[in-house]
Amino acid sequence: MKIKITGTGLYLPPDIETSKHIAPLIGKSEDWILEKSGVYERRVSKIDVDQMGAIAGKEALKDSLDPDLIINASGVPKQTIPDTSAFLQKEMGFEGIPSFSIHSTCLSFITAFHTASSLIASKVYKRILIISSDRGTRGRNFNEPESASLLGDGAAAVVLEPSKEYEKSELLHFHMNTWPSGANLTEVRGGGTNKHPQDIGTTAEDNLFSMDGPGIYKIARKHVYKMMLKTLKKTGLKKEDINWIIPHQASGKAVEAYSSAGGFDKQKVINIVSKYGNCVAASVPMALAIAIQENKVKSGDLALLIGTGAGLSAACVLIRY
Amino acid sequence: MKIKITGTGLYLPPDIETSKHIAPLIGKSEDWILEKSGVYERRVSKIDVDQMGAIAGKEALKDSLDPDLIINASGVPKQTIPDTSAFLQKEMGFEGIPSFSIHSTCLSFITAFHTASSLIASKVYKRILIISSDRGTRGRNFNEPESASLLGDGAAAVVLEPSKEYEKSELLHFHMNTWPSGANLTEVRGGGTNKHPQDIGTTAEDNLFSMDGPGIYKIARKHVYKMMLKTLKKTGLKKEDINWIIPHQASGKAVEAYSSAGGFDKQKVINIVSKYGNCVAASVPMALAIAIQENKVKSGDLALLIGTGAGLSAACVLIRY
Repeated sequence: MKIKITGTGLYLPPDIETSKHIAPLIGKSEDWILEKSGVYERRVSKIDVDQMGAIAGKEALKDSLDPDLIINASGVPKQTIPDTSAFLQKEMGFEGIPSFSIHSTCLSFITAFHTASSLIASKVYKRILIISSDRGTRGRNFNEPESASLLGDGAAAVVLEPSKEYEKSELLHFHMNTWPSGANLTEVRGGGTNKHPQDIGTTAEDNLFSMDGPGIYKIARKHVYKMMLKTLKKTGLKKEDINWIIPHQASGKAVEAYSSAGGFDKQKVINIVSKYGNCVAASVPMALAIAIQENKVKSGDLALLIGTGAGLSAACVLIRY
Repeated sequence: MKIKITGTGLYLPPDIETSKHIAPLIGKSEDWILEKSGVYERRVSKIDVDQMGAIAGKEALKDSLDPDLIINASGVPKQTIPDTSAFLQKEMGFEGIPSFSIHSTCLSFITAFHTASSLIASKVYKRILIISSDRGTRGRNFNEPESASLLGDGAAAVVLEPSKEYEKSELLHFHMNTWPSGANLTEVRGGGTNKHPQDIGTTAEDNLFSMDGPGIYKIARKHVYKMMLKTLKKTGLKKEDINWIIPHQASGKAVEAYSSAGGFDKQKVINIVSKYGNCVAASVPMALAIAIQENKVKSGDLALLIGTGAGLSAACVLIRY
């Protein structure tokens, strides 16, 4: 699919919370956190997801024309109804632009990127703004030290447009699988019809993140490795041909696995988890935007956006930037 | 886009709640409800949205091969994480099928239908199962009589596949707009980062539906009428050419407006609101599935799926069945 990224934007909240600071709150040592989650520090946002995302969205658009579609691709919404895309649009000062949300938790950006590419290839839209904005620190359960020490806040945005015939930019491959046998490995059980806030049986913990990190890692590593091999086979590429691995920043261990177990050169794997934590759906576009803005990812480079998310799902999209 | 509907499914919960029964609970008379919402009775589900949707999904698939994508297109999720598509897949007994959610409240099905058509046109998927399942009665605010008397439960599903060259079935036109100036007209303020359940300031009412029915109707009617005219102009069709209007069942008044103000023959407007209420995102596919299963919508017919949703958004998709 002939698409290109014409803009990227970021919102990295200014307030830094170190693992040294958080350690006593979760009853663990700083070393325990660094060992388990690999997160040295994370950002904590004082503004809500719509304001965060709007800052990233505005930066991605810069002086370009208004988008003709806005997709919210976040993990947790601002509220149940309406979907967050309307609030993102409102904060950016737009009116009348079609907007909706695509949700597959931590993979929302990868799913939305692929879907948006298909909409552009179908010539329905010409300039799609995708925004991922998550404030995971709002849902931390301090009685669950591992996930509580992982989560951070952040937002990122990308503008997608059709690439011209003579331009190299394109989406080469997409793959996704969802295995609902792992649906309970990562949950926020509240917020919907299941554990409705008005139900007597709904506990405070039902509204907070619950994650079986080691359980996911064990299953996910195999699935992700198979998916990478399938992607290389389908595209006729070799590992060395891939210039950049831009993974979901699930944990330090999960990001390192792309080099230690996956066999990719460590320098090629974008790793921002120690500095920003796991920012749910915002992690992938944050890593992508940072890599582009730091001039790592250059025109013509092959970049593999990849990861796992609650569901349990695994997905990847291979692009030529 | 060359697509066709190859299956439809429904779940209409067996328990009926009449407006006579609900009247004293909201401090109004049965006549007041019939006048304001036009709902004579609605269904109340004892099973959750994933089980409801799975029944509709299974019926839509019948003996066909497994879908290669499952899209949840509901208004309210089962829980915050993972997205409902994983639970729908689980209830249907599938494993490994890519799944995600598309959310634009009451327009989720129309948005998902168009997006799925684009994915089929791009040859990414060949058999997409779209499920809308909503249990609006779980979020009724009995202190807000109008919206409380409107909401009902239901689920519907559709299977989309590419149509062959010689087949007439296609998607002719899609249009959507979102005006965030109306974002607060329909809300469930809880369930996300805005009014988080753990915040002291979050009230019980924040987790329930809140809707300014007359306010929406006033704005929406104009927008919808303009959108209909634009659709006719773009496709070169006349009102008489459209065989069926399949509207979101927002309220009795909203559905009737397609004939009284919109100028469409009353017999052509599918009206199920008096029997099932406003079933949030499930209303459009329920009306579509009922019209197909009752042999109203026939092969080659032009059907306009249309409506408004929280956001405030308006959208329509014109298909040849």
